[in-house]
Amino acid sequence: MQTIDLNCDMGEAFGNYPMPNDEILMDYITSANIACGYHAGDPDVMQQTVAIAIKKGVAIGAHPGLPDLQGFGRREMKISAREAYQMTLYQIGALHAFVKAAHGKLYHVKAHGALYNMAAKDAALAKAIVEAVHDFDPTLILYGLANSAMITAAKQIGLKTASEVFADRTYQDDGSLTPRTQPNAMITDTPASVKQVLMMIREQQVISVNQKTVPLQAETLCLHGDGAHAVEFAKMISEKIKAEHISIKAPVQ
Amino acid sequence: MQTIDLNCDMGEAFGNYPMPNDEILMDYITSANIACGYHAGDPDVMQQTVAIAIKKGVAIGAHPGLPDLQGFGRREMKISAREAYQMTLYQIGALHAFVKAAHGKLYHVKAHGALYNMAAKDAALAKAIVEAVHDFDPTLILYGLANSAMITAAKQIGLKTASEVFADRTYQDDGSLTPRTQPNAMITDTPASVKQVLMMIREQQVISVNQKTVPLQAETLCLHGDGAHAVEFAKMISEKIKAEHISIKAPVQ
Amino acid sequence: MQTIDLNCDMGEAFGNYPMPNDEILMDYITSANIACGYHAGDPDVMQQTVAIAIKKGVAIGAHPGLPDLQGFGRREMKISAREAYQMTLYQIGALHAFVKAAHGKLYHVKAHGALYNMAAKDAALAKAIVEAVHDFDPTLILYGLANSAMITAAKQIGLKTASEVFADRTYQDDGSLTPRTQPNAMITDTPASVKQVLMMIREQQVISVNQKTVPLQAETLCLHGDGAHAVEFAKMISEKIKAEHISIKAPVQ
Amino acid sequence: MQTIDLNCDMGEAFGNYPMPNDEILMDYITSANIACGYHAGDPDVMQQTVAIAIKKGVAIGAHPGLPDLQGFGRREMKISAREAYQMTLYQIGALHAFVKAAHGKLYHVKAHGALYNMAAKDAALAKAIVEAVHDFDPTLILYGLANSAMITAAKQIGLKTASEVFADRTYQDDGSLTPRTQPNAMITDTPASVKQVLMMIREQQVISVNQKTVPLQAETLCLHGDGAHAVEFAKMISEKIKAEHISIKAPVQ
Repeated sequence: MQTIDLNCDMGEAFGNYPMPNDEILMDYITSANIACGYHAGDPDVMQQTVAIAIKKGVAIGAHPGLPDLQGFGRREMKISAREAYQMTLYQIGALHAFVKAAHGKLYHVKAHGALYNMAAKDAALAKAIVEAVHDFDPTLILYGLANSAMITAAKQIGLKTASEVFADRTYQDDGSLTPRTQPNAMITDTPASVKQVLMMIREQQVISVNQKTVPLQAETLCLHGDGAHAVEFAKMISEKIKAEHISIKAPVQ
Repeated sequence: MQTIDLNCDMGEAFGNYPMPNDEILMDYITSANIACGYHAGDPDVMQQTVAIAIKKGVAIGAHPGLPDLQGFGRREMKISAREAYQMTLYQIGALHAFVKAAHGKLYHVKAHGALYNMAAKDAALAKAIVEAVHDFDPTLILYGLANSAMITAAKQIGLKTASEVFADRTYQDDGSLTPRTQPNAMITDTPASVKQVLMMIREQQVISVNQKTVPLQAETLCLHGDGAHAVEFAKMISEKIKAEHISIKAPVQ
Repeated sequence: MQTIDLNCDMGEAFGNYPMPNDEILMDYITSANIACGYHAGDPDVMQQTVAIAIKKGVAIGAHPGLPDLQGFGRREMKISAREAYQMTLYQIGALHAFVKAAHGKLYHVKAHGALYNMAAKDAALAKAIVEAVHDFDPTLILYGLANSAMITAAKQIGLKTASEVFADRTYQDDGSLTPRTQPNAMITDTPASVKQVLMMIREQQVISVNQKTVPLQAETLCLHGDGAHAVEFAKMISEKIKAEHISIKAPVQ
Repeated sequence: MQTIDLNCDMGEAFGNYPMPNDEILMDYITSANIACGYHAGDPDVMQQTVAIAIKKGVAIGAHPGLPDLQGFGRREMKISAREAYQMTLYQIGALHAFVKAAHGKLYHVKAHGALYNMAAKDAALAKAIVEAVHDFDPTLILYGLANSAMITAAKQIGLKTASEVFADRTYQDDGSLTPRTQPNAMITDTPASVKQVLMMIREQQVISVNQKTVPLQAETLCLHGDGAHAVEFAKMISEKIKAEHISIKAPVQ
């Protein structure tokens, strides 16, 4: 039986600013990437989000980002590999403390936003990030963009990986995501989105913007936690996947 | 043979701002309380400071503070016990990650500045902080002001403790430190300072500002890392202590 | 004809976190206290909020707070009078730049949250804040809690003042607000709230929790911008006030 | 008589971290670029630095940087032109408040670090920054790298400019600075540095790394405020310049 993991960025509230969908989304996902206070999240949000994930049986991962709260970790910063290592390690450690105190288990790490995107292409950044993960705990699973430098670097260092695919993004011929700056980057049509997801899971391939068939490992599907229709979409896609007799579960550590 | 630990706040550099005494001070101390990025320190400083402590065989502790970089964690903030728990846990976890990645061991926790002072008197804050320490790792040693609410709370929860005394501060009749706002708070005369230290270690008591003899456990002596004469004082006091055949070593975890 | 100003804290969004009520609330208020980046707000939010206020003819004020984004400026910090002066001046200047660039005019200053509350009682802090306001521009109007140390300090230094009253808070016999920690601090019954507002405006007095009549200047009424019913309440209270032939307008600078 | 301005970045202390050379350097410079709290500086440092500059008759400028205290504003961030405008305006306003409160005058603006370097090459960023300066006060002088996009953009919008040259940096054939990543970027030989400075001032040209003569306006010379020899170098270069009967003074607003 085929399986897929559904992951979602969680705990991206901050101080007085809530992320009201988090708790209900936990009913549909199998992996929660929890923000660690750099691009979003704070100790209170981290503690609460970890508690909800444990209660609902969702696999917990650290979601380290760039130190840019105002930019939500989405603005690229020219950091050195050394800095990438250090900020990843810091954030994994901070989240791990909440998981440990709650008698939970840290399963994976997924970089956030600009850090995720930069490391998908930059082998030196990717190496630094997976080293931080490996130095902290070599049994952690690295979630990264399918076909990216992150997956390559993680495999090289000996980490288990989960290749991530997107429901609402189009793909280039080389398997990379179409940059958001291009008009055809997003899939806004829900049926088209569902079709792409099911094809990626069942066939481990995707149709690129140029109508080429591109091989791609689909081990974890990224769901978005914000936006008006986030919960609705999560519910729907999870039902569609189950209806195809595909098992939804987190990767095994 | 009597023993005393010499501890010092370390890793309180930040970004472009150095703390140049840190490395040399590590030659004289046995415990390093390493800042965790809230009141001072950053991931780069943390990594470097952990590396130096390991190289020099100094016991590493986390030094969590209030989230106030501009105020260096010295301005009291009205935080709830819950917030104290969360910010302590976050910072211990962050530092622990660097210690773990460097194959070191985390030995103790000492709160910083206003957090240290508030928790010395406020039983609810003290309880929250020691719970965070205990929830993270019940074998950690809590360093706290001798005779304070922190020591009481730590013992109650079952943590080992190290009662901290000061070389350059005077004491009240109840064993508390004379507030810095009072003119006689500081001991600026070096011989008087040495005399107080040796008395505290050998006799486990101190002479208060009112000339009363006050019992007090002296298990770890706080040395200051900043200031022009920090290194000189650390060297001198360590020699004076050794000359008295008192053993200088970190508490056993 | 009697008049009242309706003020509301605006621009308290931050980065990725919106405050969706702001624009519509501007239709009902006459003074906008715009956050300046310390407790909330950022340069983007400030620019946008200033633009909306100018477009809708709402008087713009600076809303300086404590440097505590996670705590939303609501956690008291033990700052010196000197620090209160400096952080007030910094924030007024930052907001003023956006107002000036947009060809608008800065009319008033209202401290936020814990800074507002601390300065309402602490004459030294109040003096420092009004000095910052006065040093920047002596024609600015200081909005402060009716009967508070802030109003006294502002009058002493020669600033115009607007005494602020609350629709949803109960009052003590001395004219101070019942602390939120007490069970009867809030007025949750809307008719009671309306009744209190109209009495304060028309009679310049309020009935305390002990049923005493307490004199109090009601020059500006604070409306809350967050919460589910913020817009609804603003619309309703503004209609009730107009129905009583009370004029709603900002104080004259 | 030829003239040159000597400018230096000032007020880059933060909280507990001093910049001890600032006050003495003010004796040798004619323009102080004062940090505004984003890459360095805080309200206390800003107030003190403004006071010293006024006392010593040094022209005050705002020195806005990227919001990256840990990176000291030296790490490039992919910000939009809109964000560059907003963060420049915010910081100018904040500094201006301290200048105004101290009865001083704001003379110029110079971007800091990565913001300076990015805007030297990126016309859209340059345009955004000079618009912020112009929108705040069209009489301000823009200090920017000689021959850069910043100078071009500033002239286009109608700002006065001061073209900046460096004593310790080598130049490319196109008048740009040799990137620091190249081995010959820095001039470490003091006589060579003095020679380059005097040539730039007297002849308005410089010899590039390829021995070409490159025209370049030398209106303000950047001195460094940090480093062991900063004060010594400032004193020496100022004496050398005066010995050549070149007048040292700030540009006229």
